[in-house]
Amino acid sequence: MGRQKVILDKIGRSLRIRNLLVRQALAECLGTLVLVMFGCGAVAQLVLSGGTHGMFLTVNFAFGLAATLGILVCGQISGGHLNPSVTLALCILGREPWKKFPVYFLFQTLGAFLGSGVIFGMYFDALQDYGNGLFLVEGQNATADIFATYPSQHLSLVNGFFDQLIGTAALIVCILAIVDPHNNSVPKGLEAFTVGFVVLVIGLSMGFNSGYAVNPARDLGPRIFTAIAGWGSAVFTAKDYWFFVPIFAPFIGTLVGVLVYQLMVGYHVEGEARENTSVKDEEDKERLKLSNISTRDAV
Amino acid sequence: MGRQKVILDKIGRSLRIRNLLVRQALAECLGTLVLVMFGCGAVAQLVLSGGTHGMFLTVNFAFGLAATLGILVCGQISGGHLNPSVTLALCILGREPWKKFPVYFLFQTLGAFLGSGVIFGMYFDALQDYGNGLFLVEGQNATADIFATYPSQHLSLVNGFFDQLIGTAALIVCILAIVDPHNNSVPKGLEAFTVGFVVLVIGLSMGFNSGYAVNPARDLGPRIFTAIAGWGSAVFTAKDYWFFVPIFAPFIGTLVGVLVYQLMVGYHVEGEARENTSVKDEEDKERLKLSNISTRDAV
Amino acid sequence: MGRQKVILDKIGRSLRIRNLLVRQALAECLGTLVLVMFGCGAVAQLVLSGGTHGMFLTVNFAFGLAATLGILVCGQISGGHLNPSVTLALCILGREPWKKFPVYFLFQTLGAFLGSGVIFGMYFDALQDYGNGLFLVEGQNATADIFATYPSQHLSLVNGFFDQLIGTAALIVCILAIVDPHNNSVPKGLEAFTVGFVVLVIGLSMGFNSGYAVNPARDLGPRIFTAIAGWGSAVFTAKDYWFFVPIFAPFIGTLVGVLVYQLMVGYHVEGEARENTSVKDEEDKERLKLSNISTRDAV
Amino acid sequence: MGRQKVILDKIGRSLRIRNLLVRQALAECLGTLVLVMFGCGAVAQLVLSGGTHGMFLTVNFAFGLAATLGILVCGQISGGHLNPSVTLALCILGREPWKKFPVYFLFQTLGAFLGSGVIFGMYFDALQDYGNGLFLVEGQNATADIFATYPSQHLSLVNGFFDQLIGTAALIVCILAIVDPHNNSVPKGLEAFTVGFVVLVIGLSMGFNSGYAVNPARDLGPRIFTAIAGWGSAVFTAKDYWFFVPIFAPFIGTLVGVLVYQLMVGYHVEGEARENTSVKDEEDKERLKLSNISTRDAV
Repeated sequence: MGRQKVILDKIGRSLRIRNLLVRQALAECLGTLVLVMFGCGAVAQLVLSGGTHGMFLTVNFAFGLAATLGILVCGQISGGHLNPSVTLALCILGREPWKKFPVYFLFQTLGAFLGSGVIFGMYFDALQDYGNGLFLVEGQNATADIFATYPSQHLSLVNGFFDQLIGTAALIVCILAIVDPHNNSVPKGLEAFTVGFVVLVIGLSMGFNSGYAVNPARDLGPRIFTAIAGWGSAVFTAKDYWFFVPIFAPFIGTLVGVLVYQLMVGYHVEGEARENTSVKDEEDKERLKLSNISTRDAV
Repeated sequence: MGRQKVILDKIGRSLRIRNLLVRQALAECLGTLVLVMFGCGAVAQLVLSGGTHGMFLTVNFAFGLAATLGILVCGQISGGHLNPSVTLALCILGREPWKKFPVYFLFQTLGAFLGSGVIFGMYFDALQDYGNGLFLVEGQNATADIFATYPSQHLSLVNGFFDQLIGTAALIVCILAIVDPHNNSVPKGLEAFTVGFVVLVIGLSMGFNSGYAVNPARDLGPRIFTAIAGWGSAVFTAKDYWFFVPIFAPFIGTLVGVLVYQLMVGYHVEGEARENTSVKDEEDKERLKLSNISTRDAV
Repeated sequence: MGRQKVILDKIGRSLRIRNLLVRQALAECLGTLVLVMFGCGAVAQLVLSGGTHGMFLTVNFAFGLAATLGILVCGQISGGHLNPSVTLALCILGREPWKKFPVYFLFQTLGAFLGSGVIFGMYFDALQDYGNGLFLVEGQNATADIFATYPSQHLSLVNGFFDQLIGTAALIVCILAIVDPHNNSVPKGLEAFTVGFVVLVIGLSMGFNSGYAVNPARDLGPRIFTAIAGWGSAVFTAKDYWFFVPIFAPFIGTLVGVLVYQLMVGYHVEGEARENTSVKDEEDKERLKLSNISTRDAV
Repeated sequence: MGRQKVILDKIGRSLRIRNLLVRQALAECLGTLVLVMFGCGAVAQLVLSGGTHGMFLTVNFAFGLAATLGILVCGQISGGHLNPSVTLALCILGREPWKKFPVYFLFQTLGAFLGSGVIFGMYFDALQDYGNGLFLVEGQNATADIFATYPSQHLSLVNGFFDQLIGTAALIVCILAIVDPHNNSVPKGLEAFTVGFVVLVIGLSMGFNSGYAVNPARDLGPRIFTAIAGWGSAVFTAKDYWFFVPIFAPFIGTLVGVLVYQLMVGYHVEGEARENTSVKDEEDKERLKLSNISTRDAV
């Protein structure tokens, strides 16, 4: 085993990428691939099985778990955003540099593209079987909605925009509460699981209008994939150019979410944390003195 | 990024609210907003989709997760009660000052009001579509029960009162076990998740009679909202003025829950904790001596 | 608030029970009450709603969560067995004194009795409504199976005995792995949650034959309650005196579970732990020397 | 109780197996038994109840929880692989010696064989009832798919191979992220739970084609059992000798999974960890100096 280790170590060192941002972009790409692979896979399973192997709840669970696992896969390297809205929120709050935003957006979209490609390959026979060899965007046997989101019958564009805006704002409020360095609400190491819960509950309560994309990369990547893979340009033109909504509304929702959280909680925990820190510093000094005394006594 | 940080810091300091109780009330408001937004959102999704995008289980999951996330959002500041019954229980046990009770009740109700408003906006098209433009309290296409709770056909007022009383008592017994400082049953930081489990299981087993409000604010806020938003005063008069029950029964249930928990567990763990503390103090002294000895030996 | 605290403290001290076993029995009683209240509540919700407010999965979730919460409520005082099979397993392994077995069995059964009483009260109107005023043990509108377990049509007594034996053995193997002091598989404080998972998975995979009692107290207490509350002696005589099976088979299953776990894992982790301890002791001594050296150097 | 402890201790010591690999093989056998018992039990409950006591989601939950509990039962001794693909991945990466691979494969298959035997015994009456006394591999009343996996109608052998390959690769990517010693994504002690989530989400999104075996032992063991227990050699010949696919495709998937994870994340976290370690060493030295100074000051 000694020799194997030496060889593996050599391979590892030679394949290591020196540039941090490239490493982060790659990790973010794999994380979003995992998110979309498991998430859209569950939609595929629901649609293609005609409901015998899934229901809307299983899709909700899958996207929640997929978010958790996607974050776990890449979080240590890239922070595990998986969503340009999250990257944007952290840039606004000054916790990530702005240059990360376009790079992450690109690689998240690429990851989502690849993730939907994996599902396309995995369910190729089933897709053929379900659509009788056709890949349709609208109608009874449509399969485009396995990959990208489309609005329900009842939804107007205005309500649809508001839908994506609220969904993303809710996501951002919860994520900010989870990762706020001053609001230690979640034990260290459980952030990924808690974000998975957020994604799950958004699916349970905000998924009926248009399938809760709340993530421009998760929607755009698979949409581009379907355009190329055989569904054609209809994936962009369908439902009055709906595809614009899940790209732009989430960013407005991010702004709203950041504002709501910071005004109602964020700025206040930060203030309290500052006060507590100074108090704690005082206490630590006290304690140090006391421990010194007892040490001295012992000696 | 340096300049952005300075500006953000300045904004943060200037927007910070000095009064602690106001900060707590605001946080409690946001937490209850999150609870009702996700919870009632799931009911809306179930009702408006006609069962394709939800079932009673998804509502149970949503309320459980919503409670967890609501607590995570505001817990660090306000304690994350989200429910005047919980505030009452803690006031009775002397763990919160009584002046908090009316303030929290008010802001929790306000948060619930706003949360149902968000869902109303998000599903406006779907509400119109489902009720053919009408907002009805009773009948086939009723949508008022998305926001506030109403009793099932089989339920008498007496049984309904008992239903809310038992549900709240069960909630309080579990929450007291979770947050009891002497009964360290749950690892630090997991309280919010465990309370979410409690809300989930109450929905799974006590939700059939009248939709398990077990929370006066969660029921009253959305009821007021629906009265204003178009459902009219029928939301109060329906089912023999049912709305009184989920406001008053939970408080009686709180008393019962506090009594049951304290008599059967609470007072006894407290006693044991007191004994253990004195024993541990003794042991700590012993250990200190021993470690001093070994230190001395080494020196 | 100062005066309130003084009064509460006085009440607490005066109501405290001095005898440890009585305190533990009371706690165990409340824990099993919680288990049965939430568990049987979910069965009631499923049966009485005719499937609109539940399904078999919700019952599985409810029993799992109920086990977790029951353990959390009483675990600090009594260990949170909630099941005489668990008490028996720990007595066999010498981790609990034998005198606890009859006392715990009695109070667990009492707790289960009271828990089913709570559900009976809560769903009284619905029970009347469902059975047209009758409480039946067998037939279309039977409601006795809400409280105690009865075998499916296809099940013979022999297979039923084996069913309860296997189910309990599986439960005991998993619980022993979770609480084995030498097999630290689960982080401290998460035992209750993991036991809940065990109960959940047993329901998902071993619930079809006869409703997975795997707990003599959980079955006997509610059965006695139904006999008294109006279902009559048929709850004992039904299905060839089935009620014997969920009382005795679990104890045989306990023996099998203890044997399987100890032979295949338990005795070996214990041995390894013993070795590691001695190795670690050595290492600790080494480290102590090293730290002394560095301390000396600094001085 | 003193005497009981002495006897138990003596038994424990005399039954202890000295050989580490045998102990590990035994533990792995019990872990895989637990996995298959709960997993296939849930399939049995779904199939034999005709859907009243289960659905595909309950099978997914059961396999996820079963994986978690299987790992918890044996993880401390054997690492809790439960799957030769996982053993292979760790051998490739030099974290386990190659000699473990055949031994683990054998005992995992044996455990899966025994686990399906337990379910066969538990549901013997129900199996007889469902198949009218016959054990069929194909057709309406087939029960062979309770134990081993068979492809859906729509699936070709090529797509089936790809299905198992992708599923296993996804599993391996996630497991490597969870257990990577340099990528501390999951808090210590939660690995088993997270692996359970992975198995759950694979079932939710990749289970429609052929029932997501993604584990040669989990499929082969029960298949051999059914061949012996009465289903006959058809379990091997059915669907164009399908049984080859879930044995061989997962190993190719393992290679793909190891490559993808190592290239996109693994080698880079390793590198970072190396850098951080050296940085941290420096910092530790600094801190040591500082603490010495303050100690000296106090003295």
